Amino acid sequence: MNTESTESTEDIEDTDVVVIGGGAVGENVAARAVRGGLRTVLVERERLGGECSYWACIPSKALLRPGNALAAARRVRGVRSEGGLDEQAVFRRRDAFVSHWDDGGQVRWAEDAGITVVRGTARLSGEREVTVEGRGVVRAAHAVVVCTGSTPVVPQIPGIADVPVWTSREATSASTVPQSLAVLGGGVVGVEMAQAWARLGARVELLELGDRLLSHLPGFAGEAVAEGLRADGVRVRLGTAVSRVAVAGGGVRIESDDGSRIAVERLLVATGRKPATTGLGLETVGLTPGGRLSVDDTGLVSGVDGRWLYAAGDVTGRAPVTHQGKYAARVVGDVVAARARGEDVRPEPWSGYAATADHRAATQVVFTDPEVASVGLPEPGQESHRAVDLDVAVAGAALHADGYEGRARLVVDTEREIVLGATFVGQDVAELLHAATVAIVGEVPLRRLWHAVPAFPTISEVWLRLLEEYGL
Amino acid sequence: MNTESTESTEDIEDTDVVVIGGGAVGENVAARAVRGGLRTVLVERERLGGECSYWACIPSKALLRPGNALAAARRVRGVRSEGGLDEQAVFRRRDAFVSHWDDGGQVRWAEDAGITVVRGTARLSGEREVTVEGRGVVRAAHAVVVCTGSTPVVPQIPGIADVPVWTSREATSASTVPQSLAVLGGGVVGVEMAQAWARLGARVELLELGDRLLSHLPGFAGEAVAEGLRADGVRVRLGTAVSRVAVAGGGVRIESDDGSRIAVERLLVATGRKPATTGLGLETVGLTPGGRLSVDDTGLVSGVDGRWLYAAGDVTGRAPVTHQGKYAARVVGDVVAARARGEDVRPEPWSGYAATADHRAATQVVFTDPEVASVGLPEPGQESHRAVDLDVAVAGAALHADGYEGRARLVVDTEREIVLGATFVGQDVAELLHAATVAIVGEVPLRRLWHAVPAFPTISEVWLRLLEEYGL
Repeated sequence: MNTESTESTEDIEDTDVVVIGGGAVGENVAARAVRGGLRTVLVERERLGGECSYWACIPSKALLRPGNALAAARRVRGVRSEGGLDEQAVFRRRDAFVSHWDDGGQVRWAEDAGITVVRGTARLSGEREVTVEGRGVVRAAHAVVVCTGSTPVVPQIPGIADVPVWTSREATSASTVPQSLAVLGGGVVGVEMAQAWARLGARVELLELGDRLLSHLPGFAGEAVAEGLRADGVRVRLGTAVSRVAVAGGGVRIESDDGSRIAVERLLVATGRKPATTGLGLETVGLTPGGRLSVDDTGLVSGVDGRWLYAAGDVTGRAPVTHQGKYAARVVGDVVAARARGEDVRPEPWSGYAATADHRAATQVVFTDPEVASVGLPEPGQESHRAVDLDVAVAGAALHADGYEGRARLVVDTEREIVLGATFVGQDVAELLHAATVAIVGEVPLRRLWHAVPAFPTISEVWLRLLEEYGL
Repeated sequence: MNTESTESTEDIEDTDVVVIGGGAVGENVAARAVRGGLRTVLVERERLGGECSYWACIPSKALLRPGNALAAARRVRGVRSEGGLDEQAVFRRRDAFVSHWDDGGQVRWAEDAGITVVRGTARLSGEREVTVEGRGVVRAAHAVVVCTGSTPVVPQIPGIADVPVWTSREATSASTVPQSLAVLGGGVVGVEMAQAWARLGARVELLELGDRLLSHLPGFAGEAVAEGLRADGVRVRLGTAVSRVAVAGGGVRIESDDGSRIAVERLLVATGRKPATTGLGLETVGLTPGGRLSVDDTGLVSGVDGRWLYAAGDVTGRAPVTHQGKYAARVVGDVVAARARGEDVRPEPWSGYAATADHRAATQVVFTDPEVASVGLPEPGQESHRAVDLDVAVAGAALHADGYEGRARLVVDTEREIVLGATFVGQDVAELLHAATVAIVGEVPLRRLWHAVPAFPTISEVWLRLLEEYGL
């Protein structure tokens, strides 16, 4: 660890770029800025690598993958699979993937990349100026980039302040299987953690206010995941509002407005996240804390004079998933470096200086069983759009798993005959997504896609069926 | 079964199109021709559905998938997988996938599609004329399409005519595990069957004349598959020429030119296939039997007057895999229908009337463990080409399987900055291929592909690393 990253009360040396927040997004901004020749300070108050590395993508997939691999094997006749999951081994594997919550490896990576890592809580204290608590002020010659991510939203439910709840952090890092778990919220975190813990042995109940799971995706996705959860013994309750929670025995009592009461050992609140913009000193540069930081496609924050304040990732409220945040981060890092060189940056759509995919081809995978993979538009948005829907009923899928059930949707612009969106649901569809992303980003006409011949017998053959269904 | 498909000595009614050979390729030609409004007779001497359905793609993947699913589960710590494979259950599952070698279902499909199915051995007997043995002559108003596929090549090895050998047919349809199996040839059939039977319990030895397996693919593919085979106990012997085989005991004795001798229960000859053009009456239309039927991108056979003789699939010697054959079949069916309507068919590259992908973006997957998936150019072909090689070392891969090992190559045209070829090797890479195929077929520039953001943490994230490695 070099001197910049040890505790000290001295001022930090002035620099070219200061990045506030050292999650995956901040790391990528910093790495690209350094690559562009800029001195870059990355300030992190907790662990370098952030939410994704320690309490989200990585540990959640680590908890899910053993169950998915086992289920996949069990769906193939001829495989003897008497065993189940060894929970303690699953936890140990998860612990290894999060480096036992030690960010030493990431600090080494950052320092090797030429990034100056500063530990501490940072806030803006004026134009191009950041104050790090207990460390003093650092000035940025070119840019300050806010990558503080998001924090869980805890809903206003009577009694909730008085009960111990799990957020995504506890749900991904726990090493004891609760006997019973109530999950509040049927979004990505809710469904993934409901399934992970159910498969590890917890009795799980999922409570969702709305009438479906994964409400931001086509209905068939939430339905398939609900069915998958039920197959694992999860009680899925839709349209259920919680009216009160209270401590009861060693756990939590949950009352719903339909009059039902349940008592569980743990309550996971997974009702969404909000941009982390409080305590950041935004008011010192004329912005209002609490909301999202509105940015253009270069990552420049709106409403601030002088083109020096940027943001990327969840804090911008754009596509709030790690990989899209990292993508925006690469753009911001490149833009800042280009402008520092005096280049006239023109953020043309799909150029290297515009995070165009955030609103045209944002991708997401839900790693439940069945998986859900989506990109771009989930539903037709205009009259010239058409949804092409099909079961994933190809030989490759049947061979992959007995009784394979899957569903695919393309959203097509019927005037330009290009793909605008795609959603796949089914076992092991995650890797099918990138083909759709390339088709959307490349604006490849359907008649050209006709020549992209899926290998037989893969699950990707569903592409051929989708194009035939469209009419080719 | 309708009257056309029962045995009879009556002439068959004249028609618009006669397709010789009712494998997957012939079926697709016929279906597209019918869709185009043409009366179509499909003649098959054996089983409708052909090699792929009964003795190749389907049963081979059915034999491999249980072992792959089991191995995948075993590579995830936390999964208890004490069991192994239940061979009899694997065979029963395979038998179900090949419909117990009964083509009734395919005949019903064809008839429902409006195709007239004729059982018998067909040969050309003049222009637009086909003679079906024992059934008489059928005349085609528009076209005859040859889709007779290919047959195994048995090499000239002293003694081989006197020993009972397995070809791919026996290797995919056997229901007893031989104690020992020698596999001659390290191509796709050889490596797939070596692994399938090794995992089912046979002691397997693979003998390859050349210095690597899968010689049509980049070297790292064959090396990885060889390592996978060795991990399953297969003895892989490269650079080994067999000098003599003979019956010995209940099996076969194999002598190599290095002086070694082995005795095995079964010998699988998997040394390639040749186009099935003998006994077809090609000489009646001025062609020479024995070689491949040379065709243009519409499927029209070269060297025959009058634009009526077409071919698709293995018999043409183009991209000899089922899905490319079916692709060429769709083109031929559409071309024949368009010409029958009097259209001036212009086979512009990538139009619906040209099987352009056969030479620009042919795809192939080897369903071993590790899998190999390839499309387009395997190696840089010109000075303006560059191979971008990387280990598949992304979080998604590590989470997918402990100790994940994989390799990826893009072949890039550095002038146009587009992808010309891609090869992926590793567990479960089959579904990664289609993204590369879309990129190649769509000629999507690398700078645009930069906006195709792989979801985190999937294995597809290797795309990001490949583009970074290229220099983006």
